[in-house]
Amino acid sequence: MISLIIAESALERVPREILTHSSVRNHAQRARRNPGDLLLDRSYHHNAMKGLRNAEKRGRPDLVHFALLSALATPLYLQDELAVYLHTADDLAITIGRKVRLPKTYARFETLFVQLLKTKFIETDGEVLLSCSEMSFQELSRTIGSDINVGLSSSGAMNNVRVVGEELRATKNATFVIGGFPKSDFSQAVLEGIDSLYSISSMPLEAHVVIARIIYELEMLRNL
Amino acid sequence: MISLIIAESALERVPREILTHSSVRNHAQRARRNPGDLLLDRSYHHNAMKGLRNAEKRGRPDLVHFALLSALATPLYLQDELAVYLHTADDLAITIGRKVRLPKTYARFETLFVQLLKTKFIETDGEVLLSCSEMSFQELSRTIGSDINVGLSSSGAMNNVRVVGEELRATKNATFVIGGFPKSDFSQAVLEGIDSLYSISSMPLEAHVVIARIIYELEMLRNL
Repeated sequence: MISLIIAESALERVPREILTHSSVRNHAQRARRNPGDLLLDRSYHHNAMKGLRNAEKRGRPDLVHFALLSALATPLYLQDELAVYLHTADDLAITIGRKVRLPKTYARFETLFVQLLKTKFIETDGEVLLSCSEMSFQELSRTIGSDINVGLSSSGAMNNVRVVGEELRATKNATFVIGGFPKSDFSQAVLEGIDSLYSISSMPLEAHVVIARIIYELEMLRNL
Repeated sequence: MISLIIAESALERVPREILTHSSVRNHAQRARRNPGDLLLDRSYHHNAMKGLRNAEKRGRPDLVHFALLSALATPLYLQDELAVYLHTADDLAITIGRKVRLPKTYARFETLFVQLLKTKFIETDGEVLLSCSEMSFQELSRTIGSDINVGLSSSGAMNNVRVVGEELRATKNATFVIGGFPKSDFSQAVLEGIDSLYSISSMPLEAHVVIARIIYELEMLRNL
């Protein structure tokens, strides 16, 4: 089985210290929700985020949404040959079940993930779609039982996608790891769990582009 | 130059005949907009859409958003080697300018495209980012000056992505065409403008997945 971890994802509920900030209160009022039932989103909470620790890597649930959709729409995932995990910047691990269809409409995605972060799991018809627990990147990797973690980052060694795919295919339980944040690089804590770090382009690429390319090559290599 | 047309895209303002339907009025009130300043969206207007002609292909601006983002985030587009056009189900042609960065947040994407549909163009600093005019698929194809239109559809002849990319690369001005709608197939009017119709997977694929794969192979073929 091949696994994907979207690591240090910029997905979290609005943190307590800015719940009363005017940009959060205004957004909550417009959205008719409690401030604590919103995902932190730079697009709305930019001013409130100025004082947050590590702010430049936080508050981009839109990127995480798109990264997830680009993985879950592939034949590799739909044919049950890819396991998908979200690791968040504040060390939660979210397991995406098998053949899950996430909402493509962002507002419904937000509602679903706020519920997940509050209740820790989402099930329908007795099947767990999403579950969530406190776990560092390294703990998640151990839980998955991954033999090798291949990270993708613009700071990695230049390599082509096919060769990265071959390295993943060469190991029984391989994981590829992509940052779920807008800027900067993996934290030291994540880097310590990564065995090989590659860049697949001379230009910085968004997470969904990297995910789409790696999965495509993994599918092609399956057919060789 | 290679072009991409996302054809018959399910992107339009709420049409006049359902502006007063309760599901539209409620959504407009929550969003604090005029009903006519909303994009038709099945996720909110499902009940109102029941009587609409061709309803199953309409009201999925979320799909169009993802399809566009998956094209505009690629090196091929960012390095100005790919021209991107939206053709809509009601025969508007939208030209995406060079190196445009569309909003990743859906609400901002919606605001931008409603403005575009009303004013017919969006510019910043004197540069046109988006422009819109009434045009059928065939008129758009003639305007682009395309020598060959290669369509991608689950009803096409099975082919692999690399070979489709080679066919596109073999022609000076080639266009690949992907449906911007959730179900069903290209209309007869579009099919008449398509020279080759291929399927690249035994499973039906979402538009963003097909776009990501074709563009990746086009980039790989450039480097051979």
